Amino acid sequence: MTATSATASTKKDGNVHLGEYLFSRIKQLGIDNILGVPGDFNLHLLDYIYRVPDLNWVGCCNELNAAYAADGYGRVKHLPGVLVTTYGVGELSALNGVSGAFAEQAPLLHIVGTTGRPIQEESWLVHHVLPKENSLQEPDHLVYQGMSEKVRCCSAFLNDKETAAAEIDRVLTTICQKSLPGYLFIPVDMTWQPLDAARLDSKLDYSVKNEDPKLENEIVDSILSEIYASKNATVFADVLTARHRATDLVRELAKKTNFPNYTSPLGKGILNENEDRFVGVYNGQLSLEGVAKSIEASDCVLFTGPLLSDSNTGGFSHNLKDENTIYLSPDYVKVKGKLYEGVHFFPVLKKVVEQLDVEKISAESKTAAMPTISPPPVIDSPLPISQTFLVDSMSKMMRPDDLLIVETGTFQFACSDVKFNTNNSLLTQIFYSCIGFTLPATLGAALAKREDAAAKNDKGRVILVEGDGSAQMTIQELGTMVRQGLNPIIFLLNNDGYSIERAIHGPEQSYNDICPKWKWTKLLEAFGGTEGVDSFSTTVKTREELEALIGDEKFMNSDKAQLVEVIMDVNDYPWRLNEQIKLMGGKNMKVFAEYQKKNP
Amino acid sequence: MTATSATASTKKDGNVHLGEYLFSRIKQLGIDNILGVPGDFNLHLLDYIYRVPDLNWVGCCNELNAAYAADGYGRVKHLPGVLVTTYGVGELSALNGVSGAFAEQAPLLHIVGTTGRPIQEESWLVHHVLPKENSLQEPDHLVYQGMSEKVRCCSAFLNDKETAAAEIDRVLTTICQKSLPGYLFIPVDMTWQPLDAARLDSKLDYSVKNEDPKLENEIVDSILSEIYASKNATVFADVLTARHRATDLVRELAKKTNFPNYTSPLGKGILNENEDRFVGVYNGQLSLEGVAKSIEASDCVLFTGPLLSDSNTGGFSHNLKDENTIYLSPDYVKVKGKLYEGVHFFPVLKKVVEQLDVEKISAESKTAAMPTISPPPVIDSPLPISQTFLVDSMSKMMRPDDLLIVETGTFQFACSDVKFNTNNSLLTQIFYSCIGFTLPATLGAALAKREDAAAKNDKGRVILVEGDGSAQMTIQELGTMVRQGLNPIIFLLNNDGYSIERAIHGPEQSYNDICPKWKWTKLLEAFGGTEGVDSFSTTVKTREELEALIGDEKFMNSDKAQLVEVIMDVNDYPWRLNEQIKLMGGKNMKVFAEYQKKNP
Ligand SMILES: Cc1ncc(C[n+]2csc(CCOP(=O)(O)OP(=O)(O)O)c2C)c(N)n1
Ligand SMILES: Cc1ncc(C[n+]2csc(CCOP(=O)(O)OP(=O)(O)O)c2C)c(N)n1
Repeated sequence: MTATSATASTKKDGNVHLGEYLFSRIKQLGIDNILGVPGDFNLHLLDYIYRVPDLNWVGCCNELNAAYAADGYGRVKHLPGVLVTTYGVGELSALNGVSGAFAEQAPLLHIVGTTGRPIQEESWLVHHVLPKENSLQEPDHLVYQGMSEKVRCCSAFLNDKETAAAEIDRVLTTICQKSLPGYLFIPVDMTWQPLDAARLDSKLDYSVKNEDPKLENEIVDSILSEIYASKNATVFADVLTARHRATDLVRELAKKTNFPNYTSPLGKGILNENEDRFVGVYNGQLSLEGVAKSIEASDCVLFTGPLLSDSNTGGFSHNLKDENTIYLSPDYVKVKGKLYEGVHFFPVLKKVVEQLDVEKISAESKTAAMPTISPPPVIDSPLPISQTFLVDSMSKMMRPDDLLIVETGTFQFACSDVKFNTNNSLLTQIFYSCIGFTLPATLGAALAKREDAAAKNDKGRVILVEGDGSAQMTIQELGTMVRQGLNPIIFLLNNDGYSIERAIHGPEQSYNDICPKWKWTKLLEAFGGTEGVDSFSTTVKTREELEALIGDEKFMNSDKAQLVEVIMDVNDYPWRLNEQIKLMGGKNMKVFAEYQKKNP
Repeated sequence: MTATSATASTKKDGNVHLGEYLFSRIKQLGIDNILGVPGDFNLHLLDYIYRVPDLNWVGCCNELNAAYAADGYGRVKHLPGVLVTTYGVGELSALNGVSGAFAEQAPLLHIVGTTGRPIQEESWLVHHVLPKENSLQEPDHLVYQGMSEKVRCCSAFLNDKETAAAEIDRVLTTICQKSLPGYLFIPVDMTWQPLDAARLDSKLDYSVKNEDPKLENEIVDSILSEIYASKNATVFADVLTARHRATDLVRELAKKTNFPNYTSPLGKGILNENEDRFVGVYNGQLSLEGVAKSIEASDCVLFTGPLLSDSNTGGFSHNLKDENTIYLSPDYVKVKGKLYEGVHFFPVLKKVVEQLDVEKISAESKTAAMPTISPPPVIDSPLPISQTFLVDSMSKMMRPDDLLIVETGTFQFACSDVKFNTNNSLLTQIFYSCIGFTLPATLGAALAKREDAAAKNDKGRVILVEGDGSAQMTIQELGTMVRQGLNPIIFLLNNDGYSIERAIHGPEQSYNDICPKWKWTKLLEAFGGTEGVDSFSTTVKTREELEALIGDEKFMNSDKAQLVEVIMDVNDYPWRLNEQIKLMGGKNMKVFAEYQKKNP
């Protein structure tokens, strides 16, 4: 229906086709890869990707995987992962991935190609349309749009060419500012509508500003006074710090102040672990010994980017008193009990770091003795490679700039104990905790990392640790990694099923078994890799085998996609998982019993 | 938290635990297999499956696949496919599968294990819970329940033990009556609540009754008179006939009356194609020559179970006049223009068949000459195995009682031309048209067929024809087929990508390529099969190879899971697809142009 060639721009008479406008805007932001799956309601739209120089289409095997990949991309790039799906069938398939991005605040743009405007208005019962329960009633073509309402921060239904450009800009800007998913719904006959090309000359500004600069300055001042007054200040970085692009800021804060500093499980890596003043991962009662005691004794915890979910707070066992804590959140700032709702922490933190006068910090705070932190308890396993051994091995794996991705499962509760190298980061979903997420997220993360590797002189690798049960969910995306020439290292923990669930309930129940006898080391090849050329797979059973691998520069510096099957025991659980289950299980039992008493 | 052993019943003092009540009810209906994926909010519930004798848990690789499998099960069994998922992450992953079941009216029960009642009331931010955009607001644990509202016909949130048993019964009965999806949301602390065991002594009655028996009789009479008055009556069975368990009825109607009879593309197989009076598949202008002319000349079309979507009506090109047609739908009956809303066709059709006096049918109707139907146009392909050749091969494949499953894609538009054998049926999703559906649906269908094979003396096989692009979506469920010892035959059409999309738009665009170089014949093994023992894979490129396979009794009667990779040309499209695109493309262009004129 569009007559122009696939690569020629549609710019003409000061106008540009909607599709080209949209993808030009996306490219302007610094995004080079678009993820998704084609379908007849988005094919015309996809044509415009080829008209924007250096913008690439990355087709995925299915839409849920593509959504996970877009989320992974967004977490690494700090710009929206862009996902294109088709009306209904593709859109709904992706929903759980978008929901995870919403829960953990990853920026994501979901573009849905929909039925054409006249066909919607006339309610044609074309394929993918959801009929009413009573077939005498006309179908509502907009019904799917309602289903994603709670997992997006903004959306636009582009059915009017007069407003479409502004709506695209609004949605992109909002997603970047809020670091949350947003939607664009584009009827097929809108893709070639002419929009004002001149708008493209000014770039989008998505910097975050607080409404009331006077109030903001007040808050900055009060935070600075608290810092100066403190005898024992600390910095504690949680995950939303990174999501809201404040990693560098908080690193600077830690460096400038010399305060002992901590991260949360989800925030691990935001502060450099091999700097002198890094203490450890604070996870309430489920921290390494010494960590909780020291941060809880602080009279001024600068707590950035909090996400206060069960597994990110040691089962709600944080013990930071309001009178000792300064919360710096995207939704509020709270200075020792005084709440400022609707104030975004970023501009505040920026000013704090800029205005901080190091001279005014108390000597006690600056030079506070570093607490002694005990090593993690060793848990034995009947098999040579235990969770404990794996933690040590991963500590040896990590090189500067590496990104470690850890799937929901047993090792997610062990990975807090991995010792990070310079500028390492962690990508894990310990709050939304959706399994199957990380394998496609690794694809997206690796794409994002590659886009900027040259510019940033980033030689870091992407390393995934994932259980067998989770891997079965989304395994086909291995093929897309190979197709894209990516070189992630995947440690596939073969422990015969859903071990974390066994730890929680029903260790012997067959529902915790998974599809057996998968030939894990054959999969990269089956999905298109050529062993030794663009892929490499191996199995490790002994400690020596794993050590040899990590000692092998060929493995450590490979340009191939690599999969290492690690044989582990079915009931090998990390210490923190055992403790988490004990703690949360206890809390659950208590409230269940109380509830039962009240509702006999 | 539950103390009893995994297999002992929980019946005691006239009570039974909710979990056991639920699964006992399900088993009573005649359902032997439960599909899904475990998660910590449903583990306790799953324990009760083992307490119901001969009820099996079938774990799937992921929830979307499990939903597709449950849909496939429901379409074959005509009882709800039962799907169990966990709160949020699992529940949303399955949504698109449930939506497809809703669109095409497959009975499906989606059981979601949710957070416990007190934890909901206190709004704990535990894993899987969706936070509010503003983290100062408390999360709403019920938010996911709203997302599936439009794709279910009923639901119950079981948070009260006094009403839970009645609610379970209501939801199960409604699903069976409406042949649509329904939901049960079960907080984890409800699973062990005591319900009245005595209710289980009386079975659920899900027979459909019309409210007004007098009106029903009037309708029956008027239909009988129309039949008797007709000179040229026909029977036309569409897919909802089968969904509402009226296949036997409409077969009896066809047999008793001796009227020439037809099916729709989706309804193919409902009427036996090797009976004398079967004419063909009516698909408006996109029927084989002779079909449309003859049915459109009928003065009394008994049209059962209509689903009037684009690809099931030859792009809305049905030409049945109201004054010649009797519509028999679950939502209405319409006798030659006279509409009876809210009347269900089943009891009406039953009475018509029972009361029909063959003597009163006109001789013309009973002995109407059978029209001459032209064979399908032959479309050439540069490769030996063309769509046309495949149609002929599948016609030779089919043996009595076989179930043919066809994925959305090129062959879906060819399969109307496959010549069916006795009691063959077709499972395809030509309306919701979601790719990836059929591979897991094959798993569910094969389970359902196996459950009743002995009782029904059903020796039929399950045969899937699927394109490579669709197969990539859900490929891992091959492993579950092997795990369950099933023996489907899978024809995997390797034509280098999304050919049906190429036919629609962008034949050369790279977005229509898929992940390349998959080793299709290695997959059954990679996913746990042992070649020659429980699986068999092969590639066919020539006509002779495919013919030899179909001539090989070992292949035709195998107890292994079998995968045949069929090499086909990337631009080989069946004739009906070309026509469909021409017709619908033309309609689209016309309305887009008109719309553009009205909205310049
Ligand atoms: C989509 C989804 N389905 C189900 C679950 C429930 N669940 C959480 S962890 C887990 C098991 C993970 O097993 P595996 O990946 O093998 O890791 P392991 O615990 O064995 O290390 C399951 C089923 C979930 N979190 N997300
Ligand atoms: C979940 C979903 N995503 C995308 C689509 C759009 N779509 C319809 S058919 C098709 C291609 C199918 O290709 P393949 O299975 O290889 O079959 P072929 O047409 O080549 O025979 C696609 C991508 C869809 N219908 N459903």
